Amino acid sequence: MKVVVTGGAGFLGQMLIRALCERGRLTRSDGAQYTIEQIVSIDQAQTGRLFVDERVGYVVGDIGNAQFLSHVLARDTDSVFHLAAVVSGAAEADFDLGMRVNLDGTRAVLECCRAQPGAPRVVFASSVAAFGGPVPMVTDDTYPRPATSYGVQKLVAEFFVGDYSRKGFIDGRAVRLPTIVVRPGKPNAAASSFASGIIREPLAGVEAICPVDATTELWVSSPGAAITSLIHAHELAPDVWGTQRVLNLPGITVTVAAMIDALRKVGGDAAAARVRMQRDEIIRRIVDTWPARFQTIRANAVGFAQDADFLGIVRAYAATLKAPA
Amino acid sequence: MKVVVTGGAGFLGQMLIRALCERGRLTRSDGAQYTIEQIVSIDQAQTGRLFVDERVGYVVGDIGNAQFLSHVLARDTDSVFHLAAVVSGAAEADFDLGMRVNLDGTRAVLECCRAQPGAPRVVFASSVAAFGGPVPMVTDDTYPRPATSYGVQKLVAEFFVGDYSRKGFIDGRAVRLPTIVVRPGKPNAAASSFASGIIREPLAGVEAICPVDATTELWVSSPGAAITSLIHAHELAPDVWGTQRVLNLPGITVTVAAMIDALRKVGGDAAAARVRMQRDEIIRRIVDTWPARFQTIRANAVGFAQDADFLGIVRAYAATLKAPA
Repeated sequence: MKVVVTGGAGFLGQMLIRALCERGRLTRSDGAQYTIEQIVSIDQAQTGRLFVDERVGYVVGDIGNAQFLSHVLARDTDSVFHLAAVVSGAAEADFDLGMRVNLDGTRAVLECCRAQPGAPRVVFASSVAAFGGPVPMVTDDTYPRPATSYGVQKLVAEFFVGDYSRKGFIDGRAVRLPTIVVRPGKPNAAASSFASGIIREPLAGVEAICPVDATTELWVSSPGAAITSLIHAHELAPDVWGTQRVLNLPGITVTVAAMIDALRKVGGDAAAARVRMQRDEIIRRIVDTWPARFQTIRANAVGFAQDADFLGIVRAYAATLKAPA
Repeated sequence: MKVVVTGGAGFLGQMLIRALCERGRLTRSDGAQYTIEQIVSIDQAQTGRLFVDERVGYVVGDIGNAQFLSHVLARDTDSVFHLAAVVSGAAEADFDLGMRVNLDGTRAVLECCRAQPGAPRVVFASSVAAFGGPVPMVTDDTYPRPATSYGVQKLVAEFFVGDYSRKGFIDGRAVRLPTIVVRPGKPNAAASSFASGIIREPLAGVEAICPVDATTELWVSSPGAAITSLIHAHELAPDVWGTQRVLNLPGITVTVAAMIDALRKVGGDAAAARVRMQRDEIIRRIVDTWPARFQTIRANAVGFAQDADFLGIVRAYAATLKAPA
C-alpha cells in the first residue's frame, strides 16, 4: 500500500515516517493489514538530514497547488497523514498565508483523496488551539471557540474532514494534538515553541527565554505519544469513529514551574538556572487562550496512548541526546 | 450610507430591503444612525416582481466571483446583510455547488468587506442546520455538530465571520435562523420547504405533501421575526457581541400535528384535509438531524424578537393573502 505524509520533512513527520517504516504495515479499508510498499513525504522544503529508507520518497511542493498534489497522490494512495501546516504564531502574523495553507491546502488534500478510486483513510493532525479560553475543563462536548486564526483554520478543517467522511469521499479521522514537548532542533514560529525551548536549550547548555508566567498551565504530550496516537487513529475501525470524526487526544496538564522542576531533576540546578523569565505579551496572549485541562473520556475509551508524567517526558528526551543518531 | 444585501432578490432579501427602506436609517461604526442612501441587492437571478424604491438597485451576479463582488461593494459599503446561499437540499445533492457558493462565496464577501476602508458591519444569516441531532435541548454552549453539508458550510462561515471580526477586518454578527414559516411563493430545494408548503398550499386550495411524520418537531420563526432579528443583529453595539460573533435566535418549537391544527383553525377542516402525509426518506433524514428545542438565553438577554405562538404566525400569513400587494 501507498501512504502519503504531508509535512513529512518536519519533526513529527519524520518521526511518523520512521515509525511507519518500523511498523511495516497498516490497515486498509477492507479491515486487513497490508505491507507498506511506499511512503511519499510532501513538504514545502527539504531541511536538514532526512530519514532514509528505500520505501520513502521525498517530494518538495506546495499542498495548496492542486495540480502538484494530484500528481503526487496519483490514483493509488491508500492512506494520508495530513500534518502540513503554517504554525500558530505564523498564521496569526500572516492571516492570508494561514488561510492558504491551513485551509485551502487541507481542502486540496481532501479533494485529491476524494478523487482516489477508494475512500482513503485520512488522519488529520488538529490542535488544542481549536479551543479558546477561558474554559476551566474541556470535555468531549465542549464547544470549540478558537481565539486564533490557526485555531479557526484547524477547526474548520476538522469539519471538512467530518463532512467528506459523511459523504463517503474519505474515511477521515481528526485528532487534536496537545502542545508537543520536547521538540528537538530549533525554535519555530509556533507560539508554543518556548515549551520545548525551556527544556531543550538548558539541557544543551544554552539559555532559554520563557515568555509566559511560571503559573501558566499547558496541555502537553510527548512526541512519542503523539506519533502512537496518529497511527492509532488510522488503525481504528470506521465504526469506532462513526459520525464524530474528531476527538481530543490525552495529554498532561503541567505548569511552567513544574516543567522547570522536571528540568532541574534531569539537568541539575545549572540547567534550571538557564531559563530566563521574560514575558512576551503577544505569545502570552495566544498561549493564554489555550485551555490546559481536559477530560478525554472518548479517546481513553478507544485506547489512545498517554504519557505517564512530565518528568518521564524530559527523561526520554534527555536519553535521545546520548543515543547515537 | 450604503447597504449591500446578498440574496436580495429572494423572499427574505426582499422583505429585508423593504424593511430597511421603511426604517430609513441604520447605525454605523461610530455608533450614530445615518440615513440609508443606497441599497444594492446582489442575487444570482432576477425572479418575479421586485420591490421598487429609488434607493434600491438590483445587480445580477455570482457572489463567488471576487471581481464582480469588489465592483459592487466598491469602497463605500458601510453594511452588508449576507443572505445568499444554496439551500440545504440543494447543497446536499450537489456538494461542490454548496461549497462554491456557501463557503467560497461567503469568503469572497468577507474579503471584499475587508478591503473596505472601514470595517463594515456584516450580518450573516446562519442556520439551525449548524446543529445535528440528536440534541435534546440546544443551549448557547451546545457543540455544533452539523449533519449536512449545508450545516457544515454555514457553521464554517460563522467561524470566518468570527475570525474576520477578531482581526478587525469586519464587524461581523452571525445569527442562526430557525426554519422560516410561512414562506410565500413556490416550494424550493430546502429540505424545510414542506414546513411552509403545508400551510401555504392548503390555504390556497391546493394539496400539500408532508414528507415527515406528524410527531416531527420543528424550530420555527415567522419571516417578520427573522427580519426584525437581522436588523437587530446589525444595530447592537460591537461590545454586545464581544468575542462571540454568533448566537441562536429565538423561535418556537412546534410539531407538524400542531402546525396542521393551526391551519385548521385558520383555514377550516377543508384546508387541513389538503395536507397529505407521504414520507420522503431523504427529506426526513435531513430534517431529523435538526434539533427542535432551544434555550436562547443570550439572544433573549440582548433583546431579539420572538413570535408569540404558531397560530399567530398562520393568522399573520393569512392576513397577507387578503391585503393588497
